[in-house]
Amino acid sequence: MKEERYFYVPEASDSNELPVDEAIHAVRVLRLKESDEIFLMDGKGSFYKAFITLTNSKHCYYKIEQSLPQTKSWTGYLHLAIAPTKDISRVEWLVEKATEIGFDEISFLNCHYSERKTIRKDRIERIVISAMKQSRKPWKPIVNDMVTFDNFMRREIVGSKFICHCYDEIEKADFFNYLKHLNSINEITVLVGPEGDFSIDEVRQAMNNNYQCVTLGTSRLRTETAGLTAIIVANLICRK
Amino acid sequence: MKEERYFYVPEASDSNELPVDEAIHAVRVLRLKESDEIFLMDGKGSFYKAFITLTNSKHCYYKIEQSLPQTKSWTGYLHLAIAPTKDISRVEWLVEKATEIGFDEISFLNCHYSERKTIRKDRIERIVISAMKQSRKPWKPIVNDMVTFDNFMRREIVGSKFICHCYDEIEKADFFNYLKHLNSINEITVLVGPEGDFSIDEVRQAMNNNYQCVTLGTSRLRTETAGLTAIIVANLICRK
Repeated sequence: MKEERYFYVPEASDSNELPVDEAIHAVRVLRLKESDEIFLMDGKGSFYKAFITLTNSKHCYYKIEQSLPQTKSWTGYLHLAIAPTKDISRVEWLVEKATEIGFDEISFLNCHYSERKTIRKDRIERIVISAMKQSRKPWKPIVNDMVTFDNFMRREIVGSKFICHCYDEIEKADFFNYLKHLNSINEITVLVGPEGDFSIDEVRQAMNNNYQCVTLGTSRLRTETAGLTAIIVANLICRK
Repeated sequence: MKEERYFYVPEASDSNELPVDEAIHAVRVLRLKESDEIFLMDGKGSFYKAFITLTNSKHCYYKIEQSLPQTKSWTGYLHLAIAPTKDISRVEWLVEKATEIGFDEISFLNCHYSERKTIRKDRIERIVISAMKQSRKPWKPIVNDMVTFDNFMRREIVGSKFICHCYDEIEKADFFNYLKHLNSINEITVLVGPEGDFSIDEVRQAMNNNYQCVTLGTSRLRTETAGLTAIIVANLICRK
């Protein structure tokens, strides 16, 4: 089954029609026809084997043959909150790669030293969905709108919370070792700053909100490399 | 000290002049002048603090003030041999990211299912050097010319050798767990195939050459994501 035949349909089991973008792709690009087999992904943990019942230029109807519930390959909940890079393509590849690896939620932070103050959530959503299809991920990561660092700090977050920064004068634990020695992991939230790092005030604010300061190792990483490394390490520790 | 003032000079301590590309960048782009401070990296483990003694339109002479030998942050030797992706930009970001994380050598494989049969080594070298400067890496990873899978198999390689592939019928160890339980790690070589995977014959050939079959987890990863994940995992296990 080729990737192109995977369609993202949020309410797949309650519907009988592909969303308009997916329908156009199915009918006009792939030229699928009545009785062709397709796979639906609902982004909530299930795939569905289905076949096409009817098409026209803008619509594509289907009938589900088989529900295929999937098992998540990691325990807990992985949330990355990152200040997007000035060059948006660097954030976009991070989102693609993190989706391939497996994570649950991404937030975008507008920080004191952020050079990028806006993000196109619709573009990020499209990249996430494309990477989900490519890597056959049954769960869709949540993509949040960009918020200020202050607003993010006001958000109630449970579980283990971490902030990566480069200030030598503040003691930091090693992220990998810290996670390895946790007795149980439910939710992990990790913050990664912009090219100019978090401000020291932001770091202190996070510490006051019970974020543990961590380092990802001794390498000096770009923002997007730090974000992806954090996801790969957390996924490695949390995988079943 | 800004990144732009780092210059790659392979024989820094035996010379008193920047290589021509670096000289042009120093003089024409950064407009550095006599007595300005610069940092040199020799790619063999040392930084040097230096100052400029003389410039003209194509030359930039320096005098070393201080030798700053560095310690490598990982033990052993990490070698990635990968079939480059059809879309070269995907390989290029892999090279950038792997250099940031830290590894020792990259080889490019021309495999049975490879869609890309050539690679521009000079471009890859430039990306490596730029990432070394950005992430302040004192060692330059070796970049090899593209070779056929057969030729690579004929190369004598010591240490622990791995091949990542997706054939369900062949038993595979988990790369992370396998490395974690090794008593000592000297040299790690890991092979990653093209978009269409290695052929089953290539996998068998590697097995006959004492390559251990491994998986990087249950996620279905693109070639370049698999390559980077292998480097991040190996570096994590080997770091000091």
